[in-house]
Amino acid sequence: MSLFQKHQTTLTEAINALHSRTFYAAFPEHPAPAVYGETADADGQARFKAMLGKKFEELRQSGAEGWAGQEESPYLQESLNVSYPTFSTSTLINRSSAAFHTWRKTSINDRAGILTESLERVKKRFFEVAYATMHTTGQGYMMAFQASGPHAADRALEAIAAGYEELNRFPAKAVWDKPMGKFNIQLNKEWRAVPKGISLVIGCSTFPTWNSVTGIYGSLMTGNSVIVKPHPGAILPIAIFVAEMQNVLAENNLDPNTCQLAVDTFDKMITKELAEHPDVKLIDFTGNSAFGSYLETLPGKTVFTEKTGVNSVILDSVEDIDKTAANLAFSVNLYSGQMCTAPQNFYVPQAGIKTPTGTVSFDEFAEKFVAQINGLVDNPKAGPFVLGAVQNKKTKERVTDAEKLPGKVWLISRSFENPMFKKARVATPVVVEVDSSKKEIFSKELFGPIALLIKTKNTDESIALAKEMALAHGAISCGAYTTDAAVKEKIADEMALAATPVSFNLTGGIYMNQNAAFSDFHVTGGNPSGNASFTNPEYVTKRFTWVGHREPVKV
Amino acid sequence: MSLFQKHQTTLTEAINALHSRTFYAAFPEHPAPAVYGETADADGQARFKAMLGKKFEELRQSGAEGWAGQEESPYLQESLNVSYPTFSTSTLINRSSAAFHTWRKTSINDRAGILTESLERVKKRFFEVAYATMHTTGQGYMMAFQASGPHAADRALEAIAAGYEELNRFPAKAVWDKPMGKFNIQLNKEWRAVPKGISLVIGCSTFPTWNSVTGIYGSLMTGNSVIVKPHPGAILPIAIFVAEMQNVLAENNLDPNTCQLAVDTFDKMITKELAEHPDVKLIDFTGNSAFGSYLETLPGKTVFTEKTGVNSVILDSVEDIDKTAANLAFSVNLYSGQMCTAPQNFYVPQAGIKTPTGTVSFDEFAEKFVAQINGLVDNPKAGPFVLGAVQNKKTKERVTDAEKLPGKVWLISRSFENPMFKKARVATPVVVEVDSSKKEIFSKELFGPIALLIKTKNTDESIALAKEMALAHGAISCGAYTTDAAVKEKIADEMALAATPVSFNLTGGIYMNQNAAFSDFHVTGGNPSGNASFTNPEYVTKRFTWVGHREPVKV
Repeated sequence: MSLFQKHQTTLTEAINALHSRTFYAAFPEHPAPAVYGETADADGQARFKAMLGKKFEELRQSGAEGWAGQEESPYLQESLNVSYPTFSTSTLINRSSAAFHTWRKTSINDRAGILTESLERVKKRFFEVAYATMHTTGQGYMMAFQASGPHAADRALEAIAAGYEELNRFPAKAVWDKPMGKFNIQLNKEWRAVPKGISLVIGCSTFPTWNSVTGIYGSLMTGNSVIVKPHPGAILPIAIFVAEMQNVLAENNLDPNTCQLAVDTFDKMITKELAEHPDVKLIDFTGNSAFGSYLETLPGKTVFTEKTGVNSVILDSVEDIDKTAANLAFSVNLYSGQMCTAPQNFYVPQAGIKTPTGTVSFDEFAEKFVAQINGLVDNPKAGPFVLGAVQNKKTKERVTDAEKLPGKVWLISRSFENPMFKKARVATPVVVEVDSSKKEIFSKELFGPIALLIKTKNTDESIALAKEMALAHGAISCGAYTTDAAVKEKIADEMALAATPVSFNLTGGIYMNQNAAFSDFHVTGGNPSGNASFTNPEYVTKRFTWVGHREPVKV
Repeated sequence: MSLFQKHQTTLTEAINALHSRTFYAAFPEHPAPAVYGETADADGQARFKAMLGKKFEELRQSGAEGWAGQEESPYLQESLNVSYPTFSTSTLINRSSAAFHTWRKTSINDRAGILTESLERVKKRFFEVAYATMHTTGQGYMMAFQASGPHAADRALEAIAAGYEELNRFPAKAVWDKPMGKFNIQLNKEWRAVPKGISLVIGCSTFPTWNSVTGIYGSLMTGNSVIVKPHPGAILPIAIFVAEMQNVLAENNLDPNTCQLAVDTFDKMITKELAEHPDVKLIDFTGNSAFGSYLETLPGKTVFTEKTGVNSVILDSVEDIDKTAANLAFSVNLYSGQMCTAPQNFYVPQAGIKTPTGTVSFDEFAEKFVAQINGLVDNPKAGPFVLGAVQNKKTKERVTDAEKLPGKVWLISRSFENPMFKKARVATPVVVEVDSSKKEIFSKELFGPIALLIKTKNTDESIALAKEMALAHGAISCGAYTTDAAVKEKIADEMALAATPVSFNLTGGIYMNQNAAFSDFHVTGGNPSGNASFTNPEYVTKRFTWVGHREPVKV
């Protein structure tokens, strides 16, 4: 049985899910012993610990030109001391070019089979990946497992499915038979989906696998060779993915360099050198807007970016103000606000928020919001695990700076004790009140656990500001609370024009930060927060070119 | 019956044809009296003549701020004296912005019905359009009828069909039902295809409708409002399309400004002003590379270009050298080489071309090629109608300059008499021999009836040069003649990597210049000749953004 046959059902289900957009997951998201095995967690943790302080020798990239690695655990605030083989840009490019010509001629079905198989292999290592993610990104255990393991694998499968479908969307061959009156012109036509070349996937420090696998698998599925350039602060999680990919490639007599890992260090980054190389035709990037915008201007490249944005919450009227405040408090606490989908600007009308039992004033809402944040932080069974640790020192500084903003500070950031990691770099949310006239304060992303309560004249101003922020500075997510159908449609319409998806009236166990594979288009590509979306048809069609040849039918 | 219901069968057939890629045409290409009516041609010609020297008052764009028009007939070498209403950029933009918000809320089915109906209306005016095309572009009668009439309408329908399919590709709504163990999270999700805004379609002087309608109909189908900016030298053909579109819009109580005509003059072009306006989000352009490349760099725009290229013919081995020479001679003569798909560089090995009856030397082929060109030019029943007239004076100058190239001139350009238009601006092909080492000569587009016979070391060098030209300077079409399967696959593979479609071994009544709607992707978008293709999925998906909203299911 070929790998394609082995995984055909999964692939078919994934393509169906892409179109039904109902719930579908190929990889169970809960790290339950019943699913992943009684000892899976302990084994994974042991394997992770065994990697520390050593060379990562799993890659099938021969002839290392050096070894380097500067990852540091935000939980321990000490180095992992894992080192990876390093290679010059020319070695990486030459190997990728060579691998490209074999890989592009590998059949669509074989590519799909190999790629899906690699995800099955990684599935056996989800716990290792989870611990590697915790100790590079600072994510809590549950998020680290889900986001870097099953959710990332689902996103990767989504990219395989989307690519597979697009590659099969037009026939490989057809006879074109044109009646000309007394005779027919008959042409044999064929169409080739020609991959673009070398694909560079640039990772970020907070979601090292989830944000990278769509580009990696999207490019590979469509026949491109890939160079994965992780963030120097978060290598290990994606290194495990690449190692398993290389294993499956080698087992199938293909060049492991079809998907290479390109490690660099903070003091000598090779990203620009790789990105500007003329043989690199595709670039996927997650990270800051300045670098993303620079990449978008590189001539002769197809670039997919997810940059920064200013995410808004519009509060108009609610069914239950306490549940609303609790939901939003969770969104702000989750991974200490270090998600690209985390809310930052909360627009509350000066007249307050309408509820079935009367209006809740701006101040009353602020109090409830702060109380819910504190309640979660101070819950020792939940807080430390929801907040996790802060990936970057600069994020902590930004939180401290936010307390100096000109406005009432409703909540200052503080520390708390993580029972498992005493030295963890932590910061709880800061909440500051800002008047809607002080646009310069809230017109930029303040990455981290920073919430601004913006007092607006009314909901119309709230909507206008949320739309303006999205159009001018980007937005990846938006929350809105209203019980009024007309207001709801206005928000839906105005934010749609700003290409921002809106989560309405979320309470309970679902948050505006979360984006589901096969159902949510993550980043629309329609505002400055990014020019690409996971995973609409463009996300894969731009990775190859349709070329049609033709020849008269022989008579 | 709604317009959608009226045209539903056509739309379904068109979508099927997009996927089967077999022959399909909704609009008969032959101007036969049996199809279009006994008096259709004479009536069309009369209506065209009645327009000359007058104001074009058919547009439903009120309050003209001026009247202008500088079209000149290449057949008569005199002005048409047709003037069109002109408007300032701000008027055009303001009207387009206002129309956008109504049009984007018009249902997908209504948009499809209205757009298809407008093509049915234009069908009644194909002969007028044909004469208008002849007397602006210089095309021969048959090409003017086919390219500007039925073929353009088929391409427009293709864009409608592609847009319609993409807009319906994902459900408008779905319930996302995620099992969480003890309970389920249920979200109502909805997805909106949000148009980008104002679409600017910039026309060219040689194919004023065929090259513009895909952008116009692609943008309108996906909900954008459109401003059509024709080339000042070729307005009337597309003005008729726009007028009929406005009629159908008005009849359906929609704003005719949803699709506006923006006329300018050679001395005061408004293209840049329109293109750079921040409200213009989409730009379609056909024309020279310099302006196209400038448009591609404009920030915040989605740009679709068809620019220039260097089209090659690779001659390796043939079944019949005379039929080959005849086919290529026709391609060079057709519309005096003024097609973006016309061949320019003919690569012939120094050892000659293999045939079943022995090798034909370079010189023998040159003689046969020249003889075939002369035979067609000197055939009074065919030549003048195939060659047509030369649109632009500069093209004639370029042909004259080509005779001074350093190489043997196998054929000089000359004049001939068009029996119907004594004053026509005409030029027959010039054929010059160039050595493959003189790359600087053939590394650029020499627009017009200019053929370079390039003597190469062998077919491998021919392939390498054709590929290099396409990668460096773009190519829209390629011809190749070989009877060797391995050589054929090498050409197919190498030119595919240069994103250039190859027509193999064409003889008889089909030419490498021709591109069929629903079957050929015109311009692949993968080399410098343009970044867009008629009509792959990207061509329409880039005109809108998917935005998904969600809300918990009420329990």
